[in-house]
This record gives sequence, structure tokens and C-alpha cells, in this order.
Amino acid sequence: MRPYILITNDDGVDAPGVLILTRLMMEIGDVIVVAPDGARSGQSNAITVKHPVRYHKIEEREGLKRYSCTGTPTDCVKLAFNELTVRKPDLLVSGINHGSNSAINVIYSGTMGATLEGCENGVPSIGFSLCDHDYHADFSFFEPFILQLSREVLKNGLPRNVCLNVNAPIGEIKGIRISRQCSGQWVKEYAKRTDPVGRDYFWLTGFFENHEPDAEDTDEWALANGFISVVPTTTDMTAHGFIEVMKKWEI
Amino acid sequence: MRPYILITNDDGVDAPGVLILTRLMMEIGDVIVVAPDGARSGQSNAITVKHPVRYHKIEEREGLKRYSCTGTPTDCVKLAFNELTVRKPDLLVSGINHGSNSAINVIYSGTMGATLEGCENGVPSIGFSLCDHDYHADFSFFEPFILQLSREVLKNGLPRNVCLNVNAPIGEIKGIRISRQCSGQWVKEYAKRTDPVGRDYFWLTGFFENHEPDAEDTDEWALANGFISVVPTTTDMTAHGFIEVMKKWEI
Repeated sequence: MRPYILITNDDGVDAPGVLILTRLMMEIGDVIVVAPDGARSGQSNAITVKHPVRYHKIEEREGLKRYSCTGTPTDCVKLAFNELTVRKPDLLVSGINHGSNSAINVIYSGTMGATLEGCENGVPSIGFSLCDHDYHADFSFFEPFILQLSREVLKNGLPRNVCLNVNAPIGEIKGIRISRQCSGQWVKEYAKRTDPVGRDYFWLTGFFENHEPDAEDTDEWALANGFISVVPTTTDMTAHGFIEVMKKWEI
Repeated sequence: MRPYILITNDDGVDAPGVLILTRLMMEIGDVIVVAPDGARSGQSNAITVKHPVRYHKIEEREGLKRYSCTGTPTDCVKLAFNELTVRKPDLLVSGINHGSNSAINVIYSGTMGATLEGCENGVPSIGFSLCDHDYHADFSFFEPFILQLSREVLKNGLPRNVCLNVNAPIGEIKGIRISRQCSGQWVKEYAKRTDPVGRDYFWLTGFFENHEPDAEDTDEWALANGFISVVPTTTDMTAHGFIEVMKKWEI
């Protein structure tokens, strides 16, 4: 039986990145796409709780079904598992995101939100992102690596609480580096403007400040040096090392 | 100098939980509240990128400033740090959430999204949640523990990438258990309805399936047995243990 592959993203069902990912995955298996009906960047693991969600089939042909969904990327994955997949997928791939999801961006990313949701449901899951926000970005250098990584995950599986956060630099690629999430933070995050009636409003913007620019085992280092970074990423957010420390507190 | 404490939540700036938290924190320090102008449950670490955000001062008196914000809980924290706080806060507290944020709920929670955002910005941060969705829930048993934990965090600090996810059971409390995030998943997540023109829509609902009901070191066990669970929670989502395994893959 051909592998059954669920695809989603956060840039919307018609974004070039997800169309490329769909073409690639059809080389490997039978594909179902369930993706938002428009851009949902920065949606993290947000879920829609205050109103219902809907889906709409937009294409069906041999080896491919495509659905758009009114919800967030995480909603898309939940709806796919609960209502749309014919069996448990062998693989979930999310993206290809137009823009980096390295370092702390993992916690804001809708692409990675969907990937974590797949992982949480026991499906080996990979988020793919290219460090280029351009709608017409060149994904071609990334494509063979996406196929290779997807085939490796299908072959080896992933542990229950582990998924992959895969980011690619722009242009030619030197290879793959298994990395850890770089420590750093966004600074100067707002551009202040004033509307015609004199009230202030604020656009999210900012600069990423790398707290460990010299560490060679981080995703930021890999990307800055022409490598694809692969960060094994977990849904278990426990700071295990701090449990014993905290047990000594006077509480 | 009195501690400077930033408060936010995801139930909205006027929710009973955040008003109680504000009263409690005013016993400890000077308080600034920056919270959403309405309910933002399930917003995770979502950020507003497609349109600008605004804030509005709703109260100012000795030791207290309160602002409402049009964005998500994470937006509130970012806006507070970048535009509203007079110095770096000594503590961020988020909540008190009306509803549990234990186990995998941590990844969907707006309360914990805001807490992780505080942590990411180097501020010791605690998310408080009560396992009761009722708007008029009884928070009284929880209150002394909130004061105690906040004072302990002010005294001891927290490591750079660690914050606390604190959940309380309903009713009398036996004490505090330092716990880890329980493994489990939501199942049967949608209620399907049909609208008057015959189209299906889907409400998020479901049941939490505990994968390790007998483990006594989890947050779910603590809560089921009358204890407050405190889970040290990290912004570093790397599955560190899997890095060496994956380096042996043929990639």
C-alpha cells in the first residue's frame, strides 16, 4: 500500500509552497491536503473555540484530495484526523512555509503548530520552511532534501512526542545539519503609527537577537552557513531538569 | 523598591480570574495589567501580523495601571514590554484562567502563550489556571497558593528558558506537587451540525485520553488527587535526546 500523507500549511491552501509540497508528496504516496482558506501566519497552535469551522472540497483526482478549511492550521489537522482522512496517515508534512521558523519562531509558527498537532496525534510529522518570505520564492534547491527527509521519516518513524522542524536557507544548499533550537529573542517589536484621528496603532515587526551566535550546533548557525537545519522538536514542554531543583523550594 | 508585576490573561481584561489575580499581586508589588479586550481562549502563542494592534488605558491609581489591548495574549505581553512597562518587570503572572491548562493543553493555551512570551523575554513568569470553566468559579482555595508561589519565584528567580504552568483542582487543596506534563491526547474532537441550508459545520469539543493514568508524577495525577500541579515549562522545544539518534540516519 502506498503511504498515506496528510499535508497542511499556514500560508493558505493555494500558496506556492503547499502546491510544491503536494507535487513532491505525490511522488511518494497518496495525498490529502487540508489547509486554511487563506493566510494564517503566526497562528501558533491556536484553535477555534468561539465559533464552528467548516471545510470545502476543492479538488479530487487519482492519489489526491484537496480541502480548504475556515480554521487555523491546528484546526485543519484536527478536522482532517476526525472527519476527512480515510485512515491514520503515515506522515504529516506542513509547509513549505514562506519564511523561517527557526529558533524561537517555532512557538509562533502556524506551520509548526500543525506539525506539533500531527505529532500529538501519533503521526510522524515534519514542518518545512524556507527562509524567504517572497510569495514567488525559489524552492527548487530545497525540493530534493524534502523528498529525502520525508522518505527517511517514513522508513524510520519518529518517537511518540517528537516531530521535525526543518528550515532551509535561500539558494544553494551545502547539506543537512541536525541542530537544536537557538536561544535568542525578538527586540524592538513594534512600528508605531498614528491614524487620521490621532490615535496610535502598532505593527508587529522587530529584529531577532541571537544569544549564542558562536554556537555551531544551533539551527541559526546551520542556516547562516548554508545548511538545512533539522531540529527534533517535542510536544512535551516540561523543563525536566528543573523539577528536582524546584522540589527544594519552600512550598 | 516594590516588585513590578505584569499581569495578563486570555479570558479578557474584565474576567473575574484576572481581577482576583490583580488584587492578589497588589499585596506584593506595583502592578500593570495588559490584557485582551475580550476572550482569547485557545490562542496559544498566536501573534497578530496581518493588521495592527492598539491599546487603551482603562484605569490608573496608586500601584495599578490597567490597559486593554486588541490583540492576542502574546501580543499583550509584547506590547507591554515594548511600549507600556516603565522598566523590566520582576514577574509576569497570567490568568487566573477559567479552565485547565494541564497536559497537552499547554500548547493551545493563551494563558500559557503569554507566560511563555514573558519567559522568552527574560522575565520570571507563571501561568495560573483553575480546572473550572465557570465564569463565576470559586478561586478562594487557590488564592493563598498563588501568593506563596509568586513570592517564591520573586525570591528564587527562574532559569532563562523556564516558566511555571500552575493548575489548581476545584475545591479544597491538599498541597502542591511539582509535576511533569502528562502524556495524552484529545479524541472525538468535533460535534457535527447542519445549518438551515444543509451545509455541515463543526464545533470543537472532545475528550482527553490520559496515556499514563497510573503515573504519579504527572500534572493530571496531581489534579485528580486534590493537589495543585506546578510544571516547570520551557520555551526550548528541542527534543535533545533525539539529536544523537537522528545523526545516525542516512541523510
